[in-house]
Amino acid sequence: MAGRSRSPRREVPRPCEGGHVAQNDPRIDTDLVSDLLLGKWKQERLEARELAADPRVQSPPGITMDEHRARVFEQLQVLVDEGAIQRAFPRSVGGGDNHGGNIAAFQELVLADPSLQIKSGVQWGLFGAAILHLGTQRHHERWLPDVISLKLPGAFAMTEIGHGSDVDAVGTTATYDPDAQEFEIHTPFTGAWKDYLGNAAVHGQAAVVFAQLITRGVNHGVHAFFVPIRTPEGELMPGVGAEDDGVKGGLNGIDNGRLHFTHVRIPRENLLNRYGDVAADGTYSSPIESPGRRFFTMIGTLVQGRVSLDGSAVRAMEAALLVAITYGNERRQFAGADGRDTVLLDYGQHQRRLIPRLAQTYAMAFASERLLTVFDEVFSGEHDTDENRQDLETLAAALKPLSTWAALDTLQEAREACGGAGFIAKNRLTSLRADLDIYATFEGDNTVLLQLVGKRLLTDYAAQFKGADRAALARAAAGQIGERVTRFGLRRIAQSVADFGQVGRSVENLRNTDTQRALLTDRVESMVAEVALALKSAGTGVSGQERAVATEAAFNAQQHTLIEAARSHAELLQWEAFTEALERVEDPDTLRVLTWLRDLFGLSLVEKNLAWYLMRGRLSAQRADAVTAYVDRLIGRLRHQALDLVEVFGISPEVLRAEIATGIEAERQDEAQAYVDAQIAAGTRPVHEKELRKQRQREQRAQTTHVAEAVAEGVAAG
Amino acid sequence: MAGRSRSPRREVPRPCEGGHVAQNDPRIDTDLVSDLLLGKWKQERLEARELAADPRVQSPPGITMDEHRARVFEQLQVLVDEGAIQRAFPRSVGGGDNHGGNIAAFQELVLADPSLQIKSGVQWGLFGAAILHLGTQRHHERWLPDVISLKLPGAFAMTEIGHGSDVDAVGTTATYDPDAQEFEIHTPFTGAWKDYLGNAAVHGQAAVVFAQLITRGVNHGVHAFFVPIRTPEGELMPGVGAEDDGVKGGLNGIDNGRLHFTHVRIPRENLLNRYGDVAADGTYSSPIESPGRRFFTMIGTLVQGRVSLDGSAVRAMEAALLVAITYGNERRQFAGADGRDTVLLDYGQHQRRLIPRLAQTYAMAFASERLLTVFDEVFSGEHDTDENRQDLETLAAALKPLSTWAALDTLQEAREACGGAGFIAKNRLTSLRADLDIYATFEGDNTVLLQLVGKRLLTDYAAQFKGADRAALARAAAGQIGERVTRFGLRRIAQSVADFGQVGRSVENLRNTDTQRALLTDRVESMVAEVALALKSAGTGVSGQERAVATEAAFNAQQHTLIEAARSHAELLQWEAFTEALERVEDPDTLRVLTWLRDLFGLSLVEKNLAWYLMRGRLSAQRADAVTAYVDRLIGRLRHQALDLVEVFGISPEVLRAEIATGIEAERQDEAQAYVDAQIAAGTRPVHEKELRKQRQREQRAQTTHVAEAVAEGVAAG
Repeated sequence: MAGRSRSPRREVPRPCEGGHVAQNDPRIDTDLVSDLLLGKWKQERLEARELAADPRVQSPPGITMDEHRARVFEQLQVLVDEGAIQRAFPRSVGGGDNHGGNIAAFQELVLADPSLQIKSGVQWGLFGAAILHLGTQRHHERWLPDVISLKLPGAFAMTEIGHGSDVDAVGTTATYDPDAQEFEIHTPFTGAWKDYLGNAAVHGQAAVVFAQLITRGVNHGVHAFFVPIRTPEGELMPGVGAEDDGVKGGLNGIDNGRLHFTHVRIPRENLLNRYGDVAADGTYSSPIESPGRRFFTMIGTLVQGRVSLDGSAVRAMEAALLVAITYGNERRQFAGADGRDTVLLDYGQHQRRLIPRLAQTYAMAFASERLLTVFDEVFSGEHDTDENRQDLETLAAALKPLSTWAALDTLQEAREACGGAGFIAKNRLTSLRADLDIYATFEGDNTVLLQLVGKRLLTDYAAQFKGADRAALARAAAGQIGERVTRFGLRRIAQSVADFGQVGRSVENLRNTDTQRALLTDRVESMVAEVALALKSAGTGVSGQERAVATEAAFNAQQHTLIEAARSHAELLQWEAFTEALERVEDPDTLRVLTWLRDLFGLSLVEKNLAWYLMRGRLSAQRADAVTAYVDRLIGRLRHQALDLVEVFGISPEVLRAEIATGIEAERQDEAQAYVDAQIAAGTRPVHEKELRKQRQREQRAQTTHVAEAVAEGVAAG
Repeated sequence: MAGRSRSPRREVPRPCEGGHVAQNDPRIDTDLVSDLLLGKWKQERLEARELAADPRVQSPPGITMDEHRARVFEQLQVLVDEGAIQRAFPRSVGGGDNHGGNIAAFQELVLADPSLQIKSGVQWGLFGAAILHLGTQRHHERWLPDVISLKLPGAFAMTEIGHGSDVDAVGTTATYDPDAQEFEIHTPFTGAWKDYLGNAAVHGQAAVVFAQLITRGVNHGVHAFFVPIRTPEGELMPGVGAEDDGVKGGLNGIDNGRLHFTHVRIPRENLLNRYGDVAADGTYSSPIESPGRRFFTMIGTLVQGRVSLDGSAVRAMEAALLVAITYGNERRQFAGADGRDTVLLDYGQHQRRLIPRLAQTYAMAFASERLLTVFDEVFSGEHDTDENRQDLETLAAALKPLSTWAALDTLQEAREACGGAGFIAKNRLTSLRADLDIYATFEGDNTVLLQLVGKRLLTDYAAQFKGADRAALARAAAGQIGERVTRFGLRRIAQSVADFGQVGRSVENLRNTDTQRALLTDRVESMVAEVALALKSAGTGVSGQERAVATEAAFNAQQHTLIEAARSHAELLQWEAFTEALERVEDPDTLRVLTWLRDLFGLSLVEKNLAWYLMRGRLSAQRADAVTAYVDRLIGRLRHQALDLVEVFGISPEVLRAEIATGIEAERQDEAQAYVDAQIAAGTRPVHEKELRKQRQREQRAQTTHVAEAVAEGVAAG
C-alpha cells in the first residue's frame, strides 16, 4: 500500500552483474516515491483505491454477459452511495466542482473492474458531462440530479456505424419544425445508426444524441440533443429502435448497443444550447460565429475521456508490472551454476522484457499527472483560454495513444513473462488486457489522434515560415536553424541543432539531461521539418481540384512519417514530465535511482530510433553502440530496484487480486527445496543415472590411465 | 474459396500512387496461388476446411465456460465420426499413417474454434501420440483404439506448477516396487502438481504422466507412465487429486486443470517403454545409452505440437488480414479531395499497417509448409535420421515463436484497423486473439525456444573453430571469413561477407534475391559470431565453480543478443521459404506480384534492423534511405493486389463468420451515398452553414474589390 514505510524491508535476492551481490546499492525512499506518483490529487486517489478494494465493485471472472451487466449496473449505485462520482458536477446540483480529482479517482477504478469504470464514464463522464458542458442552467436543473443519482441512466449517442472518428459527418438529422416547436430526430440510413453506445442495449432511458441541426433549410452542423429513449420500465419510446451489440472482446459488463430514430419528436428546449440555439421561429444563433470553431468547441469537452483513459492505462501497466516483477523475482527455472534453479528476473532477457517497460510506466505516469493538471486548469476555469484548450487537446491526443498501446503491450509481456499462470483469469492479466483493448480506438482512434498531433506540429512549424520560400524550409529541414517548435509548456532549448554532433560524440554525455533532451527534440523537429518540406512542393504549378488531389496524395505519402513524428513528440513530452518530476526529489539515493530510470527511458527511445540518428548523422556508429551498452548497464542496475519500484504503485492485494503476486510461488519454491534438502540430509535421495555415468567415466579414465602408464612403463622397461 | 477462378473479378477500386488508376497492373492467377498455399496436403486441407465450415464444430461467443466445455467435448465426437483425426495413427489401429496430412488438417481447425482444435490436440496429438510414440505394441493395442474413438479421454501430464520449460526437472516420481511389480506415482510437493492439463479438470479418465523413474535407488530421469485417473463415471481414482484451473484468458472450451498423485500404484507394464524399460526384478534398460540423449529423444515427439501451432498461427493471421483488408477496402472515413469519404486502405498509414503484415503472412505460410514437409519426412520414417530430427526440432523452435507472436500482433492490428467493429465478438478477431494468446508460451515458451535455436547456432558456429584461438574467432566476428553456418536445408552462399559493402552500394540491387539473402544471412552470422567471441573470453584464468559462474554471467549478458540472432535466423528461413516458393511460379504476372511481396518481406526485415546494418557498415545512410523508399513503393503497388492476395487464402464465409467481411459495409456506404444523391437530385439537401459563410465571404470580397476599384478609379481620376 501507498505510504508503506522503508522498514521492514522485504528480503530481495540481489545477485548483481557477474553474480556478485552489491550491498551498497542505493534504495529509494518508498514513501517519497509513492507521494510523487500520487501527485496533486493524492486524497482522491487514496479514497478511490480504498473503494476499488471493496468486493462490491469487483466482478469474478467467467460470469455471463447478462450477469455481468446486471452486476455492473448495481455497482454504479454503490459508487453513487459512496459519493464517488459527484466530484466533477457543480456544487449547485450536489457536486464538488473538482475536475482533476474526479478524473484521478476515476482512473483508479480501472483495477476494480474496467467495465464498471467505463460504464460509470458513460453515465457521468459522457452522458452527464454532455448535459453539463453543452447544456445550460435549465438542463442542469432538470436532468443532472437524476443523472447523478442514477435515477436517469443515459447513453452518449455520438458515434454511428458509418462515422466514428469523423464526428462532423454523422448522418443523424435534427430538423426543426417551427409549427410544433419541436425537433425531429431521424436516422436516414443504416450507416447513421448510433453504435457502440454504453447503456443503449438495456439500461439507458435517455440519450444525448449528436445530429446535424437543420433549421430553415440550413444545416448548422452537429449539435447535441436530449432524447428520451426508454420508459423507466424499459420500454422503447415510439420511433426509437435499439439493437444489442452482444458479446465483445472485453468490457462485457457494459450493455453496448445501437440506436436509431424514426421521426422522433422532442421539444425545442431539448437542444443542449450552450454553443448554439434555435429560437421558436427557427432562427439559429450561436456565441461562436465560425461553424468549424463551434464544432471543435463542442466536441472539445470530449477531452475528458482521453485524459481519463490515459491515466487508467498507466494504472493497468502498473498492475501488470507489479504482477510480473513480483512473480519474476520468485519464480525459478533451469539450474544455474550455483546448483539451484535460476530466478527468472536474473535472466538478461527477462530483465530486457520488464525493466525498460517499468521505466516507460514511470514516464507515462508523470506525463499523465501533468496532463491531468492542465485539464484541471482548463476545466476549473483557472486557465481556460483558447490556446490552453488547444494545448490540452493536443497533449491528450499525444499521450492517450501511447499509454493505451503501452498498456496492451505491457499486459501482454507480463502475461507471457508469467507463462501459463499469466493466462489463468484469476491472475488478472488477460482480463485487463481484453478490457483495455478497446481503449486504443475509443475516445479517439489512436492513429487518428496521433495524426491530429502531427498536423498541429506541422501548423506550428509552418507558422514560423509564413511567407518563407522553399529554400528556407529546406535549410530548416536540414537542421540548420535554432528555432524550436516544441510547445505545450515544455522548456525551450537554447542549443542549436548543430550542437548535437558534439554532444553525440561524448559518450559520458548520454546520461546528461541536456543531451537526452537534445537528441529527442532534434528528432521531432527534424521529422516535422522533413514532412513540411515534402508537402511544400506538392501541387505547385496546378490549381483547383488538381491541386487538391496532388496535396492529398503528398500528404498521404507523408502520413506514416508524420505519425511517427507525433509519436516521438509524445515520447519527448513523457521524458520531459519524468525529468520535471526528478526536480522535485531531494533524497539523493532516490534521485539516483529515479535518474537511472529516466535515463533508461530516454536512451531506450534513442535506441529504438537508432537508425534515424545514424542516418541523419546525429550519432556515430561507435556512439550508437554506447547507447545500447549503457541501456544494458542501466537495466542491470535497476533489476535490483525493481521490487521497490513496483511496490510504490500502492496497489494493495485486495485491489490486485492476482494469486501469483501473493508470494505463493516463493512458498512453493521453499517447500520443494526443503523436500530436496531433507532427502539429502536423510541420505534417501536417489542418485541420478547421469551421476553414475560420470562416476563410471572417471573410473574408466583412471583405469585407462593406469593401463597407459603400465604400457609406458613397460615400453620404458623394455 | 480455394479454386475460385479468375473471373468474375471483384471490382476493386484502384486509385494508384498519386491518385491515378493503373489499369495495367499485373493480376495474380488466384487458382495458382491458392494451390501454392495449399501445398502438398491440399486434399487434407480442403477436407478440413469443409469440416471447419460445419456449424456443429463451431461455438457461439458468450457461452459460459461449462457450456463451452461440454460443447467442445461433443465436437470431439463429431471429429471422430467424420474420420478427421485418425490420419496420424498406424493402420493397424485404424489410422492412416499420414503424419503431414494429419497436421495440415489439424491446422485448419483453428478457424472452427481454437478450443476444439487444442482439445483435439490434447486427446490425439499429445495423450494419444505419447502412447503411440513412447509406448510399444502392447500399449498401442490396448489403449489406442479407445483413445481414437474417444471412449478413453486423457490428459498429457507433463508440465508441473514448478516446472514448465524445464521438463527434465519435474518433481513427480515413479518409484518401482519389485515385490508388487508396480510403480508408485507420487507428487512430493505442491510445485510438482501437474498443471494446465487439458482434460484434467473434467473429462480425462487417464493421463500420460511424466515422472522421474526410480528403480533400485537410481533415478533414470523422466519417463512416461499410463495412469488411470477417473472412472468412466467421472469419479477420481484413489490417490488422485484434481483441481480446476477455472476461467482462462481464452480456450475456455478446454477443461484445464491440475492433477496430483498420492502413492498411486500402477502395474509395471504401464511404463511406456519404447525408450526405457524396467524388468520385473527392477533392472533398468534402454536402447539409448546416454540419459541426456534418451530424454531429448522422448520429448522430441513433442515437436508435433510446435509444428501444429506454427501453421495454425498462420491460418489465424490469414483470417485476420482477410477481415481487415476486406473491410478496409470498403470502409470510408473523412472526405477526400474528390468529395467522397476516403477508403481506409487508400491511406498511407493504413497500408503501412496491413500490407507488410500480408507479406509476412505469406512468408510464414511458405515456411510453415516447409516445416511440415520436414516433419512428415522424419515421422513417416522417410528420412528419420538423428540429424534430421535435430534439424526438425531447431526449425520448429525457430518458426513457432515468430508465427505465434505474429498471429497475436496481426489479429490486434486487424482489430484496431476495424475500429469498434473489430471489438465485437461476432467479427471473430478478439476471440481468436484471446484463444491464441497462450500459443506464445505453450508447447514451448517462445523465448526459451528462440534461445534453443540460438544455442544451436552457436554450437554449429563453434564446430567450425574447434581448437581455433581467440584471434580466429575475432576475425570471424569481424566478418573476414567466407564460411557459413546457416543450415537446415538452406542453400549455402558463395559470396563472402566482404561483398556486402559493394552490394549495399547499389540501390537497384535491393530487389535482387542474392542481395536480400546476403543482407539477411550476414546479420545472423555476424551476430552469432559476436556472441561467440564474447563468450570465448569468459571464465579464462579461473576454473571449477568460479568458471561456471563466470560463464553463466557471460552467457546471461549475451542472452538478449543471442535471442535476436535466433529471431533473425528464423526470419531468414521464412524469407528462404518464400523465395523457394517463387521458383515454383511460372505465370509471369503472378511471379511479378509475389516477388514484390517477397521483396517487401525481405526489405521490411532489413528496415527493421537498419541500425544494425548502418552500425556494422553494411549499408550507407543513403542506401538505408533507399530501403525505406523502396518499401514504400512496394506497399503502394501491393495495395491494389491486397484483395486478390487475401482471397486466395481460401477462407469461406462459413468458416470466417465475420459480419464486417461480408460486404455489409459496402452496402451501407452505397445506401448512404444513394440517400445523399437522391437529396441532391431532388433539391432537398439542406445547405451547410459553412457553405453559406463561404458564399458570403466571396460576396464580401467582391464588394471590397468593387470599393477598392472605385477608390483606385477615383484616385486616378483625381
